[in-house]
Amino acid sequence: MDPSLFRFTVEARAPGALARAGTLWTPHGAIETPVFMPVGTQATVKTLTPRDLVDSAVQILLANAYHLTLRPGAEALREHGGLHQFMGWSRSLLTDSGGFQIFSLANPRRREGAQGSLVKVTDEGVWFTSPIDGSRQFISPERSVDVQTLIGADIIMALDECSRDDNDEEEAERSLRRTHAWLERCVARWHEQESNKHDQPPQALFGIIQGGNSRRLREESARFVTGLDLPGVAVGGESIGYSRGMTATILDWIGPLLPHDRPHYAMGVGDPESFFMVVRRGIDMFDCVLPTRLARHGTLFTRRGRLRLASAAWTADSRPPDSSCNCYTCCSFSRAYLRHLFKAEEALGPHLATVHNVHFCVRLVRDIRSAIVQGRLDEYEQEFLGAYQGGVELTD
Amino acid sequence: MDPSLFRFTVEARAPGALARAGTLWTPHGAIETPVFMPVGTQATVKTLTPRDLVDSAVQILLANAYHLTLRPGAEALREHGGLHQFMGWSRSLLTDSGGFQIFSLANPRRREGAQGSLVKVTDEGVWFTSPIDGSRQFISPERSVDVQTLIGADIIMALDECSRDDNDEEEAERSLRRTHAWLERCVARWHEQESNKHDQPPQALFGIIQGGNSRRLREESARFVTGLDLPGVAVGGESIGYSRGMTATILDWIGPLLPHDRPHYAMGVGDPESFFMVVRRGIDMFDCVLPTRLARHGTLFTRRGRLRLASAAWTADSRPPDSSCNCYTCCSFSRAYLRHLFKAEEALGPHLATVHNVHFCVRLVRDIRSAIVQGRLDEYEQEFLGAYQGGVELTD
Repeated sequence: MDPSLFRFTVEARAPGALARAGTLWTPHGAIETPVFMPVGTQATVKTLTPRDLVDSAVQILLANAYHLTLRPGAEALREHGGLHQFMGWSRSLLTDSGGFQIFSLANPRRREGAQGSLVKVTDEGVWFTSPIDGSRQFISPERSVDVQTLIGADIIMALDECSRDDNDEEEAERSLRRTHAWLERCVARWHEQESNKHDQPPQALFGIIQGGNSRRLREESARFVTGLDLPGVAVGGESIGYSRGMTATILDWIGPLLPHDRPHYAMGVGDPESFFMVVRRGIDMFDCVLPTRLARHGTLFTRRGRLRLASAAWTADSRPPDSSCNCYTCCSFSRAYLRHLFKAEEALGPHLATVHNVHFCVRLVRDIRSAIVQGRLDEYEQEFLGAYQGGVELTD
Repeated sequence: MDPSLFRFTVEARAPGALARAGTLWTPHGAIETPVFMPVGTQATVKTLTPRDLVDSAVQILLANAYHLTLRPGAEALREHGGLHQFMGWSRSLLTDSGGFQIFSLANPRRREGAQGSLVKVTDEGVWFTSPIDGSRQFISPERSVDVQTLIGADIIMALDECSRDDNDEEEAERSLRRTHAWLERCVARWHEQESNKHDQPPQALFGIIQGGNSRRLREESARFVTGLDLPGVAVGGESIGYSRGMTATILDWIGPLLPHDRPHYAMGVGDPESFFMVVRRGIDMFDCVLPTRLARHGTLFTRRGRLRLASAAWTADSRPPDSSCNCYTCCSFSRAYLRHLFKAEEALGPHLATVHNVHFCVRLVRDIRSAIVQGRLDEYEQEFLGAYQGGVELTD
């Protein structure tokens, strides 16, 4: 891999915090960090066209190698010239390996649509049953890198075992050992793949810090992953993004151990209040399905808090959802019209809501970056959080 | 009503046919005819934004007063500044009265989602039960004009009784008498509404020719409706658009009786082959849910015939759906990607398919207009129908 194609520079740091404004170059362009990455699991950010994403200044999308391998298939994507070409997206892409999805399959009571008993994890890899056609599938660290090479995203993720947070320390430690062993195998295969490339653009492998809710294991994992000198370092786990408090605690433990000259990615962070929290702790990249999923169910982020479109409060309300927002939805439609679309179960409702939530998150993180560059992160955070009511639902 | 705001001019006629190229002015712009009108029943063309519609050069949309009266309500639309403002559409609008929908409610075996026994038609008007909240609703010719005045489309339709084509001649005649009586009441109320207007833009009322499949009744209805000197004349009925042969026969009967200086609207015509057929018989405007409904189910119109996106034939096909089409979908995506979206049940699939089918129909009718202006309608029809395989499904 030519490392200059994945150069990461830091342009500004917030005084007294780990927060920084940087730029990450990939073969598909420069990404200004911190950056929110919308999720396009199945080669589409649900309801949005690439045009919509460019309109909202999206710089990088996340897709999922687990889903794409099952459908349309990694080899099929390769034949179509890779995922960028397939989905018509010319900016940067990142694929997750699917470790978290296998965790979801194995723990049905925690996540939707799962088939616990059909997942078998060994040191060699994971056997699971395709939810699409019932076929028996095998994924190993090597196969995970291979399929992500075929898919062709700019950034690829190591296969990890995303352990349950209610595991005891012994189980957690066993799981972490496996994750680290898998990471070493991923790195070896990635070097092999990179050195075999001819015309294909290089890809950057990120390792993932695990360790559950144990400080000892998290610190050990941070040192291990950092020591591999990879182009980027990620933080994963059941709590990350899911519990704001635990996410903050874990990032406080590992923040000082992360490499200064590499991008740091927190996997699964997608609510506006957490953006400030993770950026302050040195995180440069984050993704989550929350903004797009909430949108499809009719809940919008606004500068004042969450707005539920189906609420009867908006029946006669001609105001845009968020008067300070310049997205297509807020520039063009009233709360009353959006409410009508959701009440009538019209597909345009989820689309327009998704346009807004993606735009909102991207713009908020861009504003956070500007505040870091201008040396006024504290003021901007106070200003934003002073007006933002978090999970509370707006009624006027 | 200021008639100059609804001026209709004919710029060219096809030799040996009733086909003509014209322009219809409304308070929201000039419409070049013949014109295909996409259907936005509930104040949205399903899955499309107004921006998408403008991109495809859509000139006029159809909405449905029956649906809009039930939700969000005609008075609510008036409070929002009318339907244009509510849905963010600045070009022309037409509302259908809902006669056809009441027919559908009364004849569940013929149409979906219906509650036959709950519709009671009298000379005064129609009682029916709202499928949304079960409330008892009444619509009369006067109320129909009133709600369409509140909704504020540029063109409004008279309330008619859309009778069943398997009625015997006596029933059909009774139904036609009622439709004509209702039309006279609509005209009276429309004059009243127009003369009471202050700031509201004028609206044009179109009458509807009915008469089932009886030549005598169709001719009688054509003379009656034409004799009222309305801004436009429509042709309705169960067969129109539904049976291509019967539509042609009915239009052959009444074509010579239609006023030369007014626009002629065939209600419910939406398949490409029928576009030529109705335009040849003097039709200037037509609408149908077919192109948008087929799209949502994954069937695209192409210059060579219908293409079913979910077909396994496209798994490895990197070609656009229609290589001669310049819509966003055909310019940006392959058959393989669109197939993937439909297989994965992603909302982007129906959206991109709808973008294409609307673009295809609008462009085809614009090309038909150009052919009329250039005096080569016969050649263009032969060229198009020579390549187009109609209902046959493409396999390569």
